[in-house]
Amino acid sequence: MTKTYKIVVLGGDGIGPEVTDQAVRLLKEIQPQLSGVAFEFDEHSVGVGEYQKNGDALPETAFEACRNSDAILLGAMGLPNVRYPNGKEIAPQLDLREKLDLYGGVRPIELFHEADTPLKNYGPGEIDFVLVRESTEGIFAGRDAVADLDADESLNIIRITRKGAERVCRMAFEVARKRDKAKKVSLIDKANVLSTMVYFRHIFDEVAKDFPDITAEHVYVDASALFMVRRPHDFDVMVTENMFGDILSDLAAGLVGGMGMAPSADIGDKAAVFQPSHGSAPDIAGQGIANPIAMILSAVMMLQWFDNDETRRAGAALHAAVARVLSDPSNRTPDMGGKLSTTQITDAISIALKDAL
Amino acid sequence: MTKTYKIVVLGGDGIGPEVTDQAVRLLKEIQPQLSGVAFEFDEHSVGVGEYQKNGDALPETAFEACRNSDAILLGAMGLPNVRYPNGKEIAPQLDLREKLDLYGGVRPIELFHEADTPLKNYGPGEIDFVLVRESTEGIFAGRDAVADLDADESLNIIRITRKGAERVCRMAFEVARKRDKAKKVSLIDKANVLSTMVYFRHIFDEVAKDFPDITAEHVYVDASALFMVRRPHDFDVMVTENMFGDILSDLAAGLVGGMGMAPSADIGDKAAVFQPSHGSAPDIAGQGIANPIAMILSAVMMLQWFDNDETRRAGAALHAAVARVLSDPSNRTPDMGGKLSTTQITDAISIALKDAL
Ligand SMILES: CC(C)[C@H](C(=O)O)[C@@H](O)C(=O)O
Ligand SMILES: CC(C)[C@H](C(=O)O)[C@@H](O)C(=O)O
Repeated sequence: MTKTYKIVVLGGDGIGPEVTDQAVRLLKEIQPQLSGVAFEFDEHSVGVGEYQKNGDALPETAFEACRNSDAILLGAMGLPNVRYPNGKEIAPQLDLREKLDLYGGVRPIELFHEADTPLKNYGPGEIDFVLVRESTEGIFAGRDAVADLDADESLNIIRITRKGAERVCRMAFEVARKRDKAKKVSLIDKANVLSTMVYFRHIFDEVAKDFPDITAEHVYVDASALFMVRRPHDFDVMVTENMFGDILSDLAAGLVGGMGMAPSADIGDKAAVFQPSHGSAPDIAGQGIANPIAMILSAVMMLQWFDNDETRRAGAALHAAVARVLSDPSNRTPDMGGKLSTTQITDAISIALKDAL
Repeated sequence: MTKTYKIVVLGGDGIGPEVTDQAVRLLKEIQPQLSGVAFEFDEHSVGVGEYQKNGDALPETAFEACRNSDAILLGAMGLPNVRYPNGKEIAPQLDLREKLDLYGGVRPIELFHEADTPLKNYGPGEIDFVLVRESTEGIFAGRDAVADLDADESLNIIRITRKGAERVCRMAFEVARKRDKAKKVSLIDKANVLSTMVYFRHIFDEVAKDFPDITAEHVYVDASALFMVRRPHDFDVMVTENMFGDILSDLAAGLVGGMGMAPSADIGDKAAVFQPSHGSAPDIAGQGIANPIAMILSAVMMLQWFDNDETRRAGAALHAAVARVLSDPSNRTPDMGGKLSTTQITDAISIALKDAL
């Protein structure tokens, strides 16, 4: 009785296809080692390239495939110089979040080697927290509005719903429960100024009551940014609204090597997208030097997310292989000051994986 | 012909009065050394203490004095456990910003000694930029709204006006012009998602045309947080909306020693408040160990802001005295791992000041 996981692969733009290729390659190497588990890959063209060809960055067939998938692996979408007529970037990953109701942006932050962090005095594992970002509302709620550049003012709406706040807080506490660290969830808000944040905090406190085994605390968003650079070891799981999560997760990625090291998952009740936090990096696309680590770690998240002991074992093995390769600081791609190509570093991980599985 | 500067002193809550005392003391020491300049100090009680006594955190007489002043020195206001009935903190500094139309929050970030930064490889002067935060609108625009905790959703408004964006951008370019660094202004926005930010960017670009000698660039807010920890030396002057400025300025302060090291000025066309970026720190209030540096550097900003050669000379001297004292890393208060008391470190600055003036 084999369980087949339908994985939609959306390479996207720029370096997106290059890094997804590496993740898919490793998943294909893993598959024969797992009993009762098969992966079925289904590739689709999305993003700016697709928009330029067919006028739609996320064609209906690709979207339908996503909706019927067990998981979606996404490379990167968007190119800075190609925009919609309203001036905004083409970012179908936001449409996916909205249409598939992927409300929880889970962004683990882990330091593998002291050479990767700009901070003094932090070694492997000493920065290790997870940021859970609400991804369907909050300060992003006005994202469909169009600016009238000749008007005297411009308005957007901030919206926090009970449902939205509740489910993302619940997800954060569940993430904390599964970790073997401090078991603490920090709500990052600005309840001293905004009523939406007073509301968010109120709901967070309600949800916290259902998790008496987990410490709940409130931290103002401004203070949290400072704590992140002065005592990142104090964080375990953080939960916050969309925009704050966007800012803090980039900052956090900066502490462990940059966007090339930061995986993410956008998780809903019926679908999930696993993608590196980085963008399409068109300046280095096609050169074979993109850092595949964030994408590979996103594949780890996917394996752990499938509710299956075998894939969890595979996820742990792939994570261990990445950690082993990165424990040698000369194993790095150029974005991190190293010399390895995209395939070379993946080759190293592939070899380490054989031992780990 | 003596020019008398009327300086309103608002000690406020917690450590506020302790640190303002030190700044006032140094200003009084400076005054006899300046020709044709006098300082007149006018102290008022404001903040939570005042709210508890008289029901108003910013009494009318204090506000009137502020309005008729040349500058306002503010210590700190607010106490975490005392709130208005609507759950929000008592933060009359926000009322001051609004009522006096103090639209530009100028926050210089300067590293005095490598011991103060959590970042590897940065020494004195190697982190040196200014953040200009719009302080009257933006994501804070909804700050008077009250949350209905039983509703299904909570809304706030984001507002960016042409006037608001224009004047703060102009201020940023003017700040850049006065600095002897890169002469670059970076707009920090989220124009890839929010129409208010597309609008802000449009106005920034218009203003930039009036400053052809200064480089103008756009950086997304999430990326800017990452750059701040990975290459802070690339920034010269940053300008951004209220909430982004709030977050990024705390983060930036974290890079140079924390809130105890970060001065600020809230500047309007008719008034200006100079205050440390830190809060009232009630946990250490009354112990004589508060770090007065941020407050003293705020006084430096005031002296430089007065349109007067003598006060500018005094500002430069006071800045040099602070730099000289901080060049010895044992000259630190406990918040920075040191042993000096509030008055001891001010004594050291006072002595250095004698040479510098
Ligand atoms: C590309 C952009 C629209 C996106 C976002 O802001 O959510 C990105 O920054 C992210 O964090 O996934
Ligand atoms: C105390 C608080 C309301 C204030 C703000 O958010 O503006 C503070 O964080 C600041 O940066 O001055």
